[in-house]
Amino acid sequence: VDAGIMAKAQARLDNKTKPVGSLGRLEEFARRYAAMTGTPDPVLGKKVIFTFAADHGVVEEGVSAFPKEVTVQMVLNFLNGGAGINVLSRHVGAEVRVVDMGVDHEFGEVPGLIGRKVARGTRNFAKGPAMTREEAIAALEVGIELANGCRAQGVTMAGTGEMGIANTTAASAIIAAFSGCTVADVTHRGTGINDGALNHKIKIIEQALAVNRPDPKDPIDVLAKVGGLEIAGIAGLVLGCAANRMPVVVDGFISTSGALIACELCPAVKEYLFAAHESVEIGHRFMLERIGAEPILDLQLRLGEGTGAALAMGLVEAGVKILKEMATFAEAGVAEGEY
Amino acid sequence: VDAGIMAKAQARLDNKTKPVGSLGRLEEFARRYAAMTGTPDPVLGKKVIFTFAADHGVVEEGVSAFPKEVTVQMVLNFLNGGAGINVLSRHVGAEVRVVDMGVDHEFGEVPGLIGRKVARGTRNFAKGPAMTREEAIAALEVGIELANGCRAQGVTMAGTGEMGIANTTAASAIIAAFSGCTVADVTHRGTGINDGALNHKIKIIEQALAVNRPDPKDPIDVLAKVGGLEIAGIAGLVLGCAANRMPVVVDGFISTSGALIACELCPAVKEYLFAAHESVEIGHRFMLERIGAEPILDLQLRLGEGTGAALAMGLVEAGVKILKEMATFAEAGVAEGEY
Repeated sequence: VDAGIMAKAQARLDNKTKPVGSLGRLEEFARRYAAMTGTPDPVLGKKVIFTFAADHGVVEEGVSAFPKEVTVQMVLNFLNGGAGINVLSRHVGAEVRVVDMGVDHEFGEVPGLIGRKVARGTRNFAKGPAMTREEAIAALEVGIELANGCRAQGVTMAGTGEMGIANTTAASAIIAAFSGCTVADVTHRGTGINDGALNHKIKIIEQALAVNRPDPKDPIDVLAKVGGLEIAGIAGLVLGCAANRMPVVVDGFISTSGALIACELCPAVKEYLFAAHESVEIGHRFMLERIGAEPILDLQLRLGEGTGAALAMGLVEAGVKILKEMATFAEAGVAEGEY
Repeated sequence: VDAGIMAKAQARLDNKTKPVGSLGRLEEFARRYAAMTGTPDPVLGKKVIFTFAADHGVVEEGVSAFPKEVTVQMVLNFLNGGAGINVLSRHVGAEVRVVDMGVDHEFGEVPGLIGRKVARGTRNFAKGPAMTREEAIAALEVGIELANGCRAQGVTMAGTGEMGIANTTAASAIIAAFSGCTVADVTHRGTGINDGALNHKIKIIEQALAVNRPDPKDPIDVLAKVGGLEIAGIAGLVLGCAANRMPVVVDGFISTSGALIACELCPAVKEYLFAAHESVEIGHRFMLERIGAEPILDLQLRLGEGTGAALAMGLVEAGVKILKEMATFAEAGVAEGEY
């Protein structure tokens, strides 16, 4: 991003009727948003959360507290407006777009569903690669294409979300592959598994890494071997947003694994994303450190779907409104401070 | 509050289409809001931020980076909609009500200003009591009366805010008086004073405590001797909200000093408040510990006015909407988890 525009935005903030710097991270959001979009007076248009859904072959290893059918059921819940992401998106004035990246179900024509199925779920990565390299690239391209479509639709900020039973298993495998952390250090309870199931999940991920040997220098290899189709969609969306100079708010653990793939492919992408929140999942902070992002919220969330991203988008927008709407000292006839 | 209603609200949350507990603090906000209001299906009505303004005699000791006139100027900025609190309140759909508790200026008839002036500012508490006990009680009663008026107006959640040049000096003195911490441990830079001015501010507060000897067992004594008229208004509002079973979102350092007075007067009040955010002011965490509140946001804010409260109200409301609007497993036909 352009450091000059960031400085211009901060200078504008410093003229507002408040002590310099006193709105803390709201000012950070405003100047970064300005720099991302390339103007010290950025536009606030439509906000969209993309919720990518896909199934995971590794679910057959018993790594989740929920049965695989829940992926399909929750997609229908999203389309009916009854899920957490619907409630929170309505609350902040964002639209939810649900993308079928690879759910193991033929939905047919369902109003509102964006059908971009690359495969009917991944294969069980405890036994071999989750996807072919071609499938991973095709899924990345779906996300890029969705980002490319935003500008013409008046969308000015995107958020990421996902649904896919067993996808914390994939996200933990991804951060373990890149960071070299032990699997136990980056693996947690997902939707709420007990101690025995957690130990089993750790063993399955260790096995997956041993069987597949993903190459951390080749992010697409990591994505294909131990990732997921919805994670690839998120990675593509993040790449596409950065290419289009559009701020993207990345949700929690699984979304950040997608953003991490994008950042490992192209480190410049880091400048275009906001980390929505700090997840309860213990592997999340290793991802955030790697992409150099400071989470906006810490509400002990672990639902996914884009729920944290929706709330954080509201806060980013609040920061930009400070830049756009607050009166200056001169406009309001207020005396400035002497520090 | 009624533990039975809190449990009923949590049971309702546990039936929503998400892993149990996965919305973390949003669920806490929802069940506490339910318990405060006395129903597992609480109403979301109007949100109001009360921004109390007053001047401080101690300003003549040179404790602030800004001149005293800024209190008046900012009140007019609030009424014109140009301040940070106006921007953030509009963003979350809250109304701002500006209350003149004791600004050293005769406003005359100004549209929108709620005139409740108890005195033209406090006296310089470095030399003697800031207020008489009668003035402190009169100012408390203003806040109580404003809270009492809310229900009939359809207000269901209140937030606190303030404006008063030099009021971090009063807030630091209050927490020092109650906690027994050293003044240096609870005193910070306010609007942004430099090192020399900070040392001077600490000495002035030490002098104020030595001269006035506020009695920590008598919260009204503390308020009268080293508090402020806007702080008294906030304390009264918090007391009044609790008495009316209305949730109140307490902003940062100065607001929390008011909430602390209320909690020291009546500990049951603690159950009716939300702590909006963790302030940059170092004394804030001692206040939060004392009232047993966990802040919702940490955005490095130090503006006051109610800015953090406005943003936090939006998050509390989001939690309540989860309780009210999300589909249950049965409604959505989603399978439940086995933990």
